[in-house]
Amino acid sequence: MKILAIDTSGLVASVAYLEDTMLIGEFTTNHKQTHSETLMPMLQNLTKMLQQDIYTIDAIAIASGPGSFTGLRIGSATAKGLGLALDVPLIPVKTVEALAYQFYGSKNLICPLMDARRNQVYTGLYEFIDEKNEQDNQVDFAFHIIKEQCAMSIFDIIDNINELGREVIFLGDGVPVYENDLKERLRVPYSLAPASHNRQRAALVGLVGIKAFQSGKAVTADDFEPDYLRLSQAERELNEKTEKAHA
Amino acid sequence: MKILAIDTSGLVASVAYLEDTMLIGEFTTNHKQTHSETLMPMLQNLTKMLQQDIYTIDAIAIASGPGSFTGLRIGSATAKGLGLALDVPLIPVKTVEALAYQFYGSKNLICPLMDARRNQVYTGLYEFIDEKNEQDNQVDFAFHIIKEQCAMSIFDIIDNINELGREVIFLGDGVPVYENDLKERLRVPYSLAPASHNRQRAALVGLVGIKAFQSGKAVTADDFEPDYLRLSQAERELNEKTEKAHA
Repeated sequence: MKILAIDTSGLVASVAYLEDTMLIGEFTTNHKQTHSETLMPMLQNLTKMLQQDIYTIDAIAIASGPGSFTGLRIGSATAKGLGLALDVPLIPVKTVEALAYQFYGSKNLICPLMDARRNQVYTGLYEFIDEKNEQDNQVDFAFHIIKEQCAMSIFDIIDNINELGREVIFLGDGVPVYENDLKERLRVPYSLAPASHNRQRAALVGLVGIKAFQSGKAVTADDFEPDYLRLSQAERELNEKTEKAHA
Repeated sequence: MKILAIDTSGLVASVAYLEDTMLIGEFTTNHKQTHSETLMPMLQNLTKMLQQDIYTIDAIAIASGPGSFTGLRIGSATAKGLGLALDVPLIPVKTVEALAYQFYGSKNLICPLMDARRNQVYTGLYEFIDEKNEQDNQVDFAFHIIKEQCAMSIFDIIDNINELGREVIFLGDGVPVYENDLKERLRVPYSLAPASHNRQRAALVGLVGIKAFQSGKAVTADDFEPDYLRLSQAERELNEKTEKAHA
């Protein structure tokens, strides 16, 4: 199967084509331009360089959240539009899980940190577990969720990790923001991802997406909704106003 | 420092910009078009999408071999031309080492396999070793070469790995070619890289390149030469002819 993968959940915009077990191409930018300016030109250019016929894709894997509200809305709108026009389903992929796949096969605890402002992060805890095949010596790495993706305080996730007592690797745009807190509070050995492994990549969304598609987790373009995990600032302020008015 | 990174050592063409510890952007294609048609348009488009001024780069990291002779020549010619025009040095990065960085931080043995035809592979054996910091809990992963990159028979590298007796992960375009040999001959647990982690990425060349630059390993564009590791087919045939003539 051939899929198009899109991740616009953070400052990074990334698009990729995957066919079965092969990455055909990937275009990633990490720049202050808004995704509304970059996403479609990147997709067009990637499609052209790969001489792809976009009508031959079977599905669109999309980073469905959490992440930047504007980023998720642009990615979502683009994927829904393409899905409707091309008549293909969408495969929602949890942003934090796709990020964790940067460290595919690592024996460490993997902790993506996306800055969610106000001392919060979008985070989760993951590990890959060896699954030995009985017939030969081949090993598969099973993805295991220790803590489901969520919005929480940076201090609470550090406490969680200290309790687990295992070596951990951090990645994501929350790392530079909370690096001092990690340094001061962590009681376990930890490392930080290098440049090549520390942000979103559409190839990872595609990798997770193909597996999800095979387990029947696709939805219609019409039904797809991003999962913000938190209320937007506007919604939060409205709720606060309403509560005050009631009080 | 800001660098441009290029890898054209295989079927993959990949370009990236890195600034210090950050990947600014990356464009990768894995398609049957020749690099002479793809490399410059990809670089132009990436530069445009990132609003980069190419005159601000400090150096060019280039996958210097081994790999496809034509691929290496195109990458080399492009990097030398850019280096001369922009008056910046080139940083040669060993292709097989850059590939091994796909599994940064892995506790397994890492074995890239690039198909070199005639039952040979370009390969090497690598591992990442935890280096604990005395002051705090932070760990760095030191890259350790167990077997330097070379051209050798697939059977010999499998024998080498069996002797080491450690779990190993394979990646590269040699994997699909020699998958049956791996299955039949390996006596240790092994795994195969997924789509997102199994081919060249310029971001990895850039990551290794920045470290190499900081250790003074840059050369002038004029001095740079790719390292083919083997004679080309034309040279091999000429040598055979000469030997026959002498015999």
